[in-house]
Parts: sequence; C-alpha cells; structure tokens
Amino acid sequence: MAEVRILCAKDIEKLFTLDMAVQAVENAYRQKSNGDGCIWPMVFHEFVHGQADLDIKSGDLKRERIFGLKVVSWYGTNEAKGLPELFGTSLLFDRETGAPKAMLNAGPVTGLRTGAAGAIGAKYLARRDAEKLLMVGCGAQSACLIAATLFVLPQIQTVWLANPRNPQKAAQRLQTLKEKVMTLLADSGAERQFTISAVSDFERAVRGSDVILTATPSYEPIIQADWVKPGTHISCIGADMTGKEELDPSLMGKALVFGDDRTQCFTVGECEVPHRMGLLPELQAEIGDVILGKARGRQNPEDITVFDSTGIALQDLASASVILDAAEAAGIGTVTERQEQILRKFGF
Amino acid sequence: MAEVRILCAKDIEKLFTLDMAVQAVENAYRQKSNGDGCIWPMVFHEFVHGQADLDIKSGDLKRERIFGLKVVSWYGTNEAKGLPELFGTSLLFDRETGAPKAMLNAGPVTGLRTGAAGAIGAKYLARRDAEKLLMVGCGAQSACLIAATLFVLPQIQTVWLANPRNPQKAAQRLQTLKEKVMTLLADSGAERQFTISAVSDFERAVRGSDVILTATPSYEPIIQADWVKPGTHISCIGADMTGKEELDPSLMGKALVFGDDRTQCFTVGECEVPHRMGLLPELQAEIGDVILGKARGRQNPEDITVFDSTGIALQDLASASVILDAAEAAGIGTVTERQEQILRKFGF
Repeated sequence: MAEVRILCAKDIEKLFTLDMAVQAVENAYRQKSNGDGCIWPMVFHEFVHGQADLDIKSGDLKRERIFGLKVVSWYGTNEAKGLPELFGTSLLFDRETGAPKAMLNAGPVTGLRTGAAGAIGAKYLARRDAEKLLMVGCGAQSACLIAATLFVLPQIQTVWLANPRNPQKAAQRLQTLKEKVMTLLADSGAERQFTISAVSDFERAVRGSDVILTATPSYEPIIQADWVKPGTHISCIGADMTGKEELDPSLMGKALVFGDDRTQCFTVGECEVPHRMGLLPELQAEIGDVILGKARGRQNPEDITVFDSTGIALQDLASASVILDAAEAAGIGTVTERQEQILRKFGF
Repeated sequence: MAEVRILCAKDIEKLFTLDMAVQAVENAYRQKSNGDGCIWPMVFHEFVHGQADLDIKSGDLKRERIFGLKVVSWYGTNEAKGLPELFGTSLLFDRETGAPKAMLNAGPVTGLRTGAAGAIGAKYLARRDAEKLLMVGCGAQSACLIAATLFVLPQIQTVWLANPRNPQKAAQRLQTLKEKVMTLLADSGAERQFTISAVSDFERAVRGSDVILTATPSYEPIIQADWVKPGTHISCIGADMTGKEELDPSLMGKALVFGDDRTQCFTVGECEVPHRMGLLPELQAEIGDVILGKARGRQNPEDITVFDSTGIALQDLASASVILDAAEAAGIGTVTERQEQILRKFGF
C-alpha cells in the first residue's frame, strides 16, 4: 500500500499488449458511458505557437479505483536536438485513499491505446464483411492502428498503406511497418493472414476500401466525399487540435458520426470544422453508448460511419491500470519507499 | 539529459532547508510579478463533498527552464485507515525540450514552502521592530511557519502558540513543536534566541502581538477586528477553499491587504468572504510586486497589514527546482532509464 511503482518504456514494452490495450480502451469507453469514468478539465498551454505545447489530461475510473493524469508535451524543435518530439508521463493514484501508485512513461502506452481506439471504432461500426483496410499516414501511429484493427477484425485480408502527400514514403516505410505489425500481433498471441502493400493511387485506394484509418497531421481534407463508397467505415485519429481535419466536411455531414467525447470532438476533433460550418449539429452517439447498447451504431449496410477518436484521459488511465496490475504480478519496475515513511521532520 | 530522478520524502528531508525554501518562494513570487512565471488553470475535483478532494496545480518558470505540476489529494477518512490525510506528488519537466526531469514526494516540500510563504509576508510587511510572534493553530504547518519566520526576522524574541478552540492542545504540542523549530533552524545553519510558550488567553495574545500567523481549517473568523493593535502584520495560511476564513471581514476592510495571486485570493483565500461582502474591492498588490519594488508595502508604522497566502504552483516549482539541483549535485535519489531509450517496438 502506498508504494509508488516506476515503469519505464522497456518495462511497459514487456508488459503491454494489443489485447490488453483493446480491453482497457473498451472498458474506458464503457465507464465513460455509464458514468463510472469522469474526465476533468484539460489544461493546455502553448509555449511557442506551432512550435511547442503541452496538455494535461486527467480523470478517474471508479471500477478500477484509480484517478490519474497524463502530461504530453510536443516540441517541434526537438528533432534537431536528437530528441523525440513527444514526451508523455502518467501518474496513477488510489481513488480510495489518494495515495500515489505509479508513474509510467506514457509513450509506449499512447501508441497502443491510440491504436486500440481506432480499432474499436471499426469493431463496432464497420460492416461484418469488411475485408480491405486502408491506413492513411505512415507515421508513428500506423503500425499500432493496423495491428489493433487486424486483431479485432480477423476477416480483414488486405491492408493498403498510403501517404497522400508523399506516396514514396509509404513504400519506403512498408517493410519496417509490416514487421512492427507482426510483432504486435505475435505479442498478443494472435495469428492473422493478410497482405500489406503501399498504394500510389490514393483516390482509387479510398474508393476500394471497406475500413479506413486516418492518422495524419493534416489541417485540410485529404479524403473527398465522393471517393468514399457506401458502407465504408472511417476511424479518424489525426485531428487533435482546433483547425486540424482529414475528411471533407460534406462527408461528415452525410455520414453517421460517432466520437469518444462529445466536447472534445466538437472543439479539437474531426467534428470541429463541419460542426462550425453547420454541417454536423450533433454526434449520433459517443462510442461508449454503442458498446453498451444504449445507442445504435451502423443502421444499414449502405451507411458510411465515422468514429472521431480525439483521445481521452480514461484510455490512458484504464491502460495504465492493467499495465500496473501486470507489473505488480510480474514484479517489474522500480518501487519507491512506502509513502507512510515520510514527514518525520516536517510533520506534514 | 532526459533522465527522471525520483525523490522520496527521506531524500527531500536531507536536501531541503529553510533558507532554500525562502529563496525559492521569493524567486517564485518575483517571477510571477515580472511575467517569467506563469500559473495554468487549476483542476479541482471533489470525490465526496467535505470528505475527499484533489487539485492539480501547474505552471512554468522561465528562468529555471522548467514546467511542472503538483497533485494534492485530501481524504478525511484516511486517518481511520492509518494513512495520512494528504498526499502530494510533483512532476518537473525541462521547459526547453518537454522531457520529464523529476518526480518528488511533495509532502515535505509543501511544509517548508508554505512556512516560507507566511514568513516572506512578514519579512516584507511587518514592522522592523516586531518582537512578538503569535502562531494561531498548532497543526502540521505550525513548526515550519514559526521556524521560517524566525529565520527571516531574527529580531523576534517571543513566540506564542495558540489553539483558540482547544487551548490545551497548544500546551500539549508545545515541546514537540519547539524541537521541530530548532531542528529546522539548525539545518539551515541559523541560530536564533527566542522563548516559546502556549497561551490560554487568546484575545490577550492577539492584542499583544506584532506578527500573527494563522494556519487553521476555520470556516468562521477567529480573530476579531478590535483585538488587533495598529502596526500588526498578519500572514493568513488557512483559507484555501471557498468559505474558509480566519479573520473578521471588517478587519480585512481596514487593513492593507496583499496576496500571492489575485485570482486565488478572491476565489479561495482569506480575501474571498470580505470581497464578496463588498468590504475589500481590491488587493493593495500581489506580494511579488512588493518584493520587486513595483508596489509599496507597509506605508506607515500604524498600518495593519495582511498577507493572504493561498499557495501557488510556482512556489512548488521553484522549490522542486532547487531540490533537484541539490539532489543532482549530491547524487541523491533514484534515476530511471534515459528517456531516449524508448519506443523501439511501438515507434512513438
């Protein structure tokens, strides 16, 4: 009780797998929907506009008896210093006593929990007969998104990788990305049969896909409304800040649109621009309501469905909680002094 | 670079002294005044009204090149479980790169930085010839407040300890508290000549004091306006939540009132009730402006001055920064892996 466990990236890479991430994120969405999970106001600060910012996302999960936060900073100038652009750190606390429980390097948590989010959108909203998956963007998130979607939708046979602004990059990154996907699936004990290839004709790839995942830093639409065939599902990951968008707003106006958190979707997510334009007055529902059966998801095979995943604190909390349980069971991580052994001198 | 240092209570007790705390808190107030320090919006959450809550205070300090946060939780039911009611945890980050630098047990930091705050109010606002100090409240904060005030005002000869609602408690706690004060002063290499005694006639003690420090959890005035003699300085520590107050609002109306942060003073501090009653439209100034000479403090020897210390994130940040420097120099604490060594598998 009241020890703090420090979990570094290598600890988390040992412990955290796709199946844990998918379960944790579904659990987070469920508790958000039934009121057991609560998101607190986000702190956002921009050090230099367009160059360096950070956010602090926090909240609690009643069922896991935890509360906590994640600090994520982005410094666009770090690459020149040989440092990662993103740093993430999570703190986890006991909701029954307030005692700190764990600090985690949130980097490797973020990758899988974000992959799981996109996949869960597809799991609950895509057609059961979906076979062709298009990954738009080949950055840091792509491998996790593809692997998690293959994990939850074993019927997917074909994966296409596209980088609309620079098609060569998709071809260059294909092999590395494929290996990462295989590793992630193997770590979860999942075997999947699929082919993966880089596409150069982006419009044609969109037209031929059943499930599309978007994870780009775009500030303007890259997928046009008339490219998307009836029955397609799209999980949007990229938009996480005012002004960012990946889909044609008119597509958002005619699709069935779901999100992880109504407030975030309309302020920083893919929904923000079409909402501001008056094309999307409301979400169909939050995804947690669909998972719990409180709201309908896809209504017929011809619907185009969209899941706007902005990323909520509860995903990180639920993920950190299962990682911490696994770390305790396996004796992994560095454990600090008991927090009771404090304050002899200062008496506070 | 980008290692995270974990500092437990015992590490911090070894490293952090009164003189460091006073310097750090003055520095925090200065940077708040000159714009180098910035406080971000506070997150406050109440789990059960009056039984369990928490806040997350965050901000940055340009000069120290850091940003960070402190999570403090209060669980009134913890005592029955043999746990402390308060837990505090700080995270510190590099403001140039966003990389995490340290996690600190904030408990022992909070004690000294709060003591330093009350003392700095007295240092800049009390009369130069102040000799008699009254400490109101004999809880966790009292020893740090007394010691820090003796440290910055060596002319204080007499210390009175009062617990207005239960005078016996002051007598009972006197010896332990005196020893803590001596230890804190000795750790800072400061020798002070003073007598300390518990008082039973509270009104008489107020009437005879030059400097008064209040640190009680009171929700109604415990010091009446006509008890306070001209020339007195009062540093108020207790009020940190809407509704809490320790001073007669009419005293606040006639005193020169200073605070650490205008917004916090009027929403959760000692200023809140008199401000709401229309007795205190504005602060004289924030204390940082007085320290920098941008605003006048005491204007004549007959003035009654009040410093409303609500506790700001920058105090914790500045304190954590000097503690971390000392820890690095002394090789104290547990250092985690370099944060560059991450993300082989997930690539984020």
